[in-house]
Amino acid sequence: MNQMTRIDPALETRMANAIRALAMDAVEAAKSGHPGAPMGMADVATVLFHRFMRLDPADHRWPDRDRFVMSAGHGSMLVYAINHLLGYGDMDMDQLRRFRQLGSRTAGHPEYGHAQGIETTTGPLGQGITTAVGMALAERMANARWGDDLVDHWTYVIAGDGCLMEGISHEAIDIAGHLRLGRLVVMWDDNGITIDGGTELSSSTDQKARFAAAGWHVQAVDGHDREAVAAAIQAARADDRPSLIACKTVIGFGAPTKQGSHDVHGAPLGPEEIAAARKALDWPYDPFTLPEDVSAAWAAIARRGAQARAEWQARLDGSDHRTAFLKAQDRPDAGALRSAIANHCAKIAAERPGLATRKASEMALEVVNATLPNTIGGSADLTGSNNTRSQGMRAVTPGDYAGNYVHYGIREHGMAAMMNGIALHGGFVPYGGTFLAFADYSRPAIRLGALMEVPVVHVMTHDSIGLGEDGPTHQPVEHLAALRAIPNLMVFRPADAVETAEAWEIALTAATTPSVLALSRQNLPTVRIDDDAENRSRRGAYVLRATPVERDVTLIATGSEVEIALAAADLLKAERINAAVVSAPCFELFSQQDPAYRQGVLCDAPRIGIEAAIRQGWDQVLRPEDGFVGMTGFGASAPAPDLYRHFGITAENVAGLAKTLIAQSLKNGGK
Amino acid sequence: MNQMTRIDPALETRMANAIRALAMDAVEAAKSGHPGAPMGMADVATVLFHRFMRLDPADHRWPDRDRFVMSAGHGSMLVYAINHLLGYGDMDMDQLRRFRQLGSRTAGHPEYGHAQGIETTTGPLGQGITTAVGMALAERMANARWGDDLVDHWTYVIAGDGCLMEGISHEAIDIAGHLRLGRLVVMWDDNGITIDGGTELSSSTDQKARFAAAGWHVQAVDGHDREAVAAAIQAARADDRPSLIACKTVIGFGAPTKQGSHDVHGAPLGPEEIAAARKALDWPYDPFTLPEDVSAAWAAIARRGAQARAEWQARLDGSDHRTAFLKAQDRPDAGALRSAIANHCAKIAAERPGLATRKASEMALEVVNATLPNTIGGSADLTGSNNTRSQGMRAVTPGDYAGNYVHYGIREHGMAAMMNGIALHGGFVPYGGTFLAFADYSRPAIRLGALMEVPVVHVMTHDSIGLGEDGPTHQPVEHLAALRAIPNLMVFRPADAVETAEAWEIALTAATTPSVLALSRQNLPTVRIDDDAENRSRRGAYVLRATPVERDVTLIATGSEVEIALAAADLLKAERINAAVVSAPCFELFSQQDPAYRQGVLCDAPRIGIEAAIRQGWDQVLRPEDGFVGMTGFGASAPAPDLYRHFGITAENVAGLAKTLIAQSLKNGGK
Repeated sequence: MNQMTRIDPALETRMANAIRALAMDAVEAAKSGHPGAPMGMADVATVLFHRFMRLDPADHRWPDRDRFVMSAGHGSMLVYAINHLLGYGDMDMDQLRRFRQLGSRTAGHPEYGHAQGIETTTGPLGQGITTAVGMALAERMANARWGDDLVDHWTYVIAGDGCLMEGISHEAIDIAGHLRLGRLVVMWDDNGITIDGGTELSSSTDQKARFAAAGWHVQAVDGHDREAVAAAIQAARADDRPSLIACKTVIGFGAPTKQGSHDVHGAPLGPEEIAAARKALDWPYDPFTLPEDVSAAWAAIARRGAQARAEWQARLDGSDHRTAFLKAQDRPDAGALRSAIANHCAKIAAERPGLATRKASEMALEVVNATLPNTIGGSADLTGSNNTRSQGMRAVTPGDYAGNYVHYGIREHGMAAMMNGIALHGGFVPYGGTFLAFADYSRPAIRLGALMEVPVVHVMTHDSIGLGEDGPTHQPVEHLAALRAIPNLMVFRPADAVETAEAWEIALTAATTPSVLALSRQNLPTVRIDDDAENRSRRGAYVLRATPVERDVTLIATGSEVEIALAAADLLKAERINAAVVSAPCFELFSQQDPAYRQGVLCDAPRIGIEAAIRQGWDQVLRPEDGFVGMTGFGASAPAPDLYRHFGITAENVAGLAKTLIAQSLKNGGK
Repeated sequence: MNQMTRIDPALETRMANAIRALAMDAVEAAKSGHPGAPMGMADVATVLFHRFMRLDPADHRWPDRDRFVMSAGHGSMLVYAINHLLGYGDMDMDQLRRFRQLGSRTAGHPEYGHAQGIETTTGPLGQGITTAVGMALAERMANARWGDDLVDHWTYVIAGDGCLMEGISHEAIDIAGHLRLGRLVVMWDDNGITIDGGTELSSSTDQKARFAAAGWHVQAVDGHDREAVAAAIQAARADDRPSLIACKTVIGFGAPTKQGSHDVHGAPLGPEEIAAARKALDWPYDPFTLPEDVSAAWAAIARRGAQARAEWQARLDGSDHRTAFLKAQDRPDAGALRSAIANHCAKIAAERPGLATRKASEMALEVVNATLPNTIGGSADLTGSNNTRSQGMRAVTPGDYAGNYVHYGIREHGMAAMMNGIALHGGFVPYGGTFLAFADYSRPAIRLGALMEVPVVHVMTHDSIGLGEDGPTHQPVEHLAALRAIPNLMVFRPADAVETAEAWEIALTAATTPSVLALSRQNLPTVRIDDDAENRSRRGAYVLRATPVERDVTLIATGSEVEIALAAADLLKAERINAAVVSAPCFELFSQQDPAYRQGVLCDAPRIGIEAAIRQGWDQVLRPEDGFVGMTGFGASAPAPDLYRHFGITAENVAGLAKTLIAQSLKNGGK
């Protein structure tokens, strides 16, 4: 443990008060924000950083740093104050003065990538603690691979009542307890206050018993008794289970008339209360001004961290693992992956198997996982259905973290947030599977990944009414549109085994964009039977079947409906109508292509979009006069072929609509 | 308690085996489905129905019936088998033969509305148990209003391991324990099996300790020991806390070689195993054939229920509450609401206040809650921000259910599912608030409500970057599009206090469609200053400001951006350009209008859509040549006016774009 040999209690009090002062002053300057949590948790955070945390502000990406996650993200000023006090180069006092202002690094909630030392974006409650579970798992997995010399750090979380009420916290706690993630220490800000009033308004749960039921080590302390907090953290570290430390605190501690009430949660204190707090805390300094002794004490933490990092660097430099370790911290090797996937696709194009894209995904994963050493697979208890486990993958089990496959349990939301955490930790490339309909369960974490620009891969099978009998609860109809709506998310819907492999390649080599792979349950023919080595999915959409002469109609389809488009083109050909078929596996990538390429793919002839889903989102490639064959409402329970007929998603209907549109277009003078 | 005086154990065994036989035969006929849960839980379900359940298949909507929720919805054949055995008129044997076929009532998962006796749609795990918490709360609230004579029933749930792993189960369990919903009995199918294998693959939680921590009464029994199950249900009913009965069962009980393994979870047993099961269960009858003694025993349950219903009917007929009770079961009185809202709107139009639509919503709720006696308000711990609590509303508290406001806690998902349950129970009209960004948390339950056609109202404030400093985690940009994508959901984004009141009227009188009200944090002017009494929002979109001569451009906006459209029209007017302004509070309603009305609103002139959100979904009113002023990515943390300027959502930009489009249109020959 990193405990300093002698603690000066008076100085440590002043170190905590510095956080309080900066928090109340910044919120006051911003005229909005949350002073309550930073002031209430200032003692706990000071003990944690002063006596335990090991990090180096001069190298904020040091892989073996301790992670700190402020799950109660509205208390962002705690993070900014600490990061300023520690001396992060991008967090000068001006940033604190400009809290919550346009262009500052000090956003209302901590935003990953905006400033150094912010390990993950928090604010939507429960995300931080679950992301931290992913980080703590990644630490153990890395430790199993590289040893104590290179990987030996802790993940600390401050969570509020809200984090613990959110459903996702259950998923986080359960799996952390199950996997015995002893390097995870959660400090619960047990202040008894929520926005509506006291927690007793809406909760009677014995949180300590709840965590114990999930296999956690549990302690409770007075969150303003710093020696007790330190002892608890030390005991937490000594136990091999994940630890909860319930810290009884007074929200807004130091604000004499408002502390302990929900008035102090989410609004500025006001000048009078701030003046009174200065007096109560014996903090006579001007706003945004720090006394030297306090600055020096915080700077010493950074110095301690810098020394630890230097020692670690020496160990790394002397390690046999050095090259491999550093390589694992990078994004996957795009060249190796390209060549492996291209070989795979050539084989597919030659053999032309008929198989579900979920099965094709498994085949692609055989290649991927053989090429990339640090993928971490998993599924929310649908391994056999999602086809996420390739040959030879080993499960991660409690106490044994050398495996590369996580049984996430029936916890879609937790899985998505943990994957964010694994990716943010670094060293691994996570992917995980569930059904596409259950993207709704994991949506808040998918969004957060897109916002943070963390390239995880969400494998989502059973992607339409094509799943058949399970019926409308399991059949996505609006999910493709809803996912395409999320900024900075690539939604792939590959048509066959070639496009599936291409999607994997793009998803895994993306630097700043997470992906969803929407995959079929039902078998599909191989449609990409050319043998060029190009990854055509990179363009988002491309002409799969061209016409010998100028086209009369363009059929644009994705995934399982590309087969239907091709069949419709055949029907039309028999009537001497030239139909081009466009496969559009990724709208987001297609929208990034230059206008000339887009026009070359889409052309002027009438267009028909074909997708067993709603039309919303398709209008970026369809004009009002164009047609769409898909769904307009929920699905139904029946064998898949019956459903396709029932909902009219058939080659015959597409061909019929094509003829109607061509006739209309001719009547209107053609295009 | 309804326990039959004498139980014939051999006959009860046969009653359970009837469920097993029907389940395995139906799954076999369908060539898909889940025999494991129905066969494993057949004993528990038989005890429950045989000895406790009080329902009348001849009046499946009897308000005082016991509710049964199969939260492990994949075990749907348990429900269908029981409902056939009980003699529901719409569940003849042919329905079981046609399990999972197109047009049958026996969908893959139980679908509310498809067949009588299905209390809620289940399948997405965790929804059933949480919906049931809503039902159990509604029962207590109704009891507090109408007394034991009219309301005195139980809510029973069968939940699987999956239901208890899902995060939403935490929210359900917590609030049920907090509110001390003693009429709720959850029977956990503790079979130790998930799809990936044994539950020990992914969970180590002590479920019994977990429920106890949440304030539940907890028991554990052998789920095949029917006397033990009966005693446990009796003890559960005697305790005033919600009850968990952990029922240790063998999944697929009766299938000699496959039972107890995950092979039996989700696939047909096959003819050989079925033949062996028939032998093992001593069930020599043909598929879909029932022996008379078993049929008679199940029919007796229905007779017992019919008698109970008759007694209840007599109590109702003799009750002073009769008229009020029956009225409460109906949808709200549209006439009274129309007139109250129209008066309110006239006052608004005269006074023209400038206020946030969330505040306008509170004002509308003052009228709504004074007019409708059975609304149930609530918020996921954002009461003061969502403005969901009108004057004089009383909180529902543990043990006192006479109130009409629920503090749902920081449980958006649980709130949405509970609201579904309250609405499904009947007698109440629930609405509940959170931030629009957190629609992602409650999305699975919002979708299920839309699928079930349950008209609940989701109040979602802070509906854009207009919320300001809280930043991108809290700022919806894709949420309007994502919600508009859900079939059978009305998404309202009112522009002022008049439209807000109109939205409430439409939402509360909708018979089969849930609604989302997207409301602003920031103040907005009153834009509907006409004094006609018509609810113009009913049309979905309408011309708010017409032009004196033919229009040059149409500005279409929603919510807080209508103000910007009007300001842009003013700027254009100064340049003698005639801009019509269309307010579009509800796309779904507008899409239902006849083409002539739509064309009259939209006209041929260039159009500009204005919404502080992404364009997706707008293409239903915009053509490729039209313009859009909105968002293309995530928001930022800053004061709202700065953000509007930063992202270019300003009257100046709209006016500038209008001039560009008009010029282009003239160049192209106009429209």
